[in-house]
Amino acid sequence: MIRLYYWPGLQGRGEFIRLLLEDAGLPYVDVARVEGTAPLLAVMARPGLTPLAPPFVDVDGLVLAQVANILHFLAPRAGLVPEDDASRHHALQIQMTVTDLLAEVHDTHHPVSTALYYEDQRAEAKQRSRLFLQRRLPKFLGWFERIASAHGDVMLGAHSYVDLSMFQIIAGLRFAFPRAMAQQDVPCLSRIHDRVAARPRVAAYLASPRRLPFNNNGIFRHYPELDAE
Amino acid sequence: MIRLYYWPGLQGRGEFIRLLLEDAGLPYVDVARVEGTAPLLAVMARPGLTPLAPPFVDVDGLVLAQVANILHFLAPRAGLVPEDDASRHHALQIQMTVTDLLAEVHDTHHPVSTALYYEDQRAEAKQRSRLFLQRRLPKFLGWFERIASAHGDVMLGAHSYVDLSMFQIIAGLRFAFPRAMAQQDVPCLSRIHDRVAARPRVAAYLASPRRLPFNNNGIFRHYPELDAE
Repeated sequence: MIRLYYWPGLQGRGEFIRLLLEDAGLPYVDVARVEGTAPLLAVMARPGLTPLAPPFVDVDGLVLAQVANILHFLAPRAGLVPEDDASRHHALQIQMTVTDLLAEVHDTHHPVSTALYYEDQRAEAKQRSRLFLQRRLPKFLGWFERIASAHGDVMLGAHSYVDLSMFQIIAGLRFAFPRAMAQQDVPCLSRIHDRVAARPRVAAYLASPRRLPFNNNGIFRHYPELDAE
Repeated sequence: MIRLYYWPGLQGRGEFIRLLLEDAGLPYVDVARVEGTAPLLAVMARPGLTPLAPPFVDVDGLVLAQVANILHFLAPRAGLVPEDDASRHHALQIQMTVTDLLAEVHDTHHPVSTALYYEDQRAEAKQRSRLFLQRRLPKFLGWFERIASAHGDVMLGAHSYVDLSMFQIIAGLRFAFPRAMAQQDVPCLSRIHDRVAARPRVAAYLASPRRLPFNNNGIFRHYPELDAE
């Protein structure tokens, strides 16, 4: 049984792993939501190579951290990445670009430091968000859209974990920046979003209490003052 | 012949790939330094899945971007990662944490936007650097040091590309933040740095004109006002 360790109460980076596990129908325990955070902290306190931060997974005793690494490890076992080496490295390349985008989305509300509250870096957040929405968001989404368009509304030759990540990116960005997202021209990504949401196991997951709602503790936060005009 | 595409004139993210190629003695062309940037821009302008940004490599027609992905692909071919699956995913986990650290180092001098000059975000850079040096740098280095200490001055069971990355991180941080780095307690990482620098092919590379000096166009930049007191 796969054990997923992540902070309870938010989708955050853990959600990309949940979506893979749910879409594949792999049994797993969302540890901190069932057993509290003590087991998570206990794994991190072990000697040697342990995770710097959640999310991480324990698969038959192998503990792995970093979302893109975890997805790259689980996807072949889940049937959620093509079998050839080139496709797997292309999947990893796209997923690492998702990681980069997430770091920039996070920094729209925490441009100075994670050690400070949002309220203590509001002016900087406004400035950083404006430039993020003007320059970076269209760059990232344009790149994803171009790939989806070239492959026929999938990110690789067939449905894969990268499509699940595109679903989550689009859903999260629409929550955080509804006005800015209404201005983006991403028809292929929108169709990937809708197709993923309609996959039977994903649809069942999204309708279940296992799917936490977006909230302002996660990476995607909705502060109207940070959105486009 | 491996073709490495990166902006000329700076070490930047490309340096992690150069170090692997040099330590392994793999023949490669540093394309933009030999042929200018036109071929780099031409690859990026191709249809379909092309890199969002340099560095990227072309290995027998397979074009791959994202440093950690490239290293994960090349390392088995270079003999620079243990053969077992667990070690390869642990290497990737550590390298992805290097990626995270690099993004934070970059943002010490560009906390608001890459679209603005450093001079236009100097006050924010000072604030972000102070908190980075107080909280984040010791957290990252402490985690790397703990792993190195557990394994006997290597990051995995044997010398690997992750050790090369530790060399580059320590060298870069010492260039950017000499005063802050003098206060860090990282004896194992320092020994890894020195051991890597003394490896014959790395030593030859570092003494050659192929190794660019650190400068303020890269990720690691030395602005004395951003360093610790």
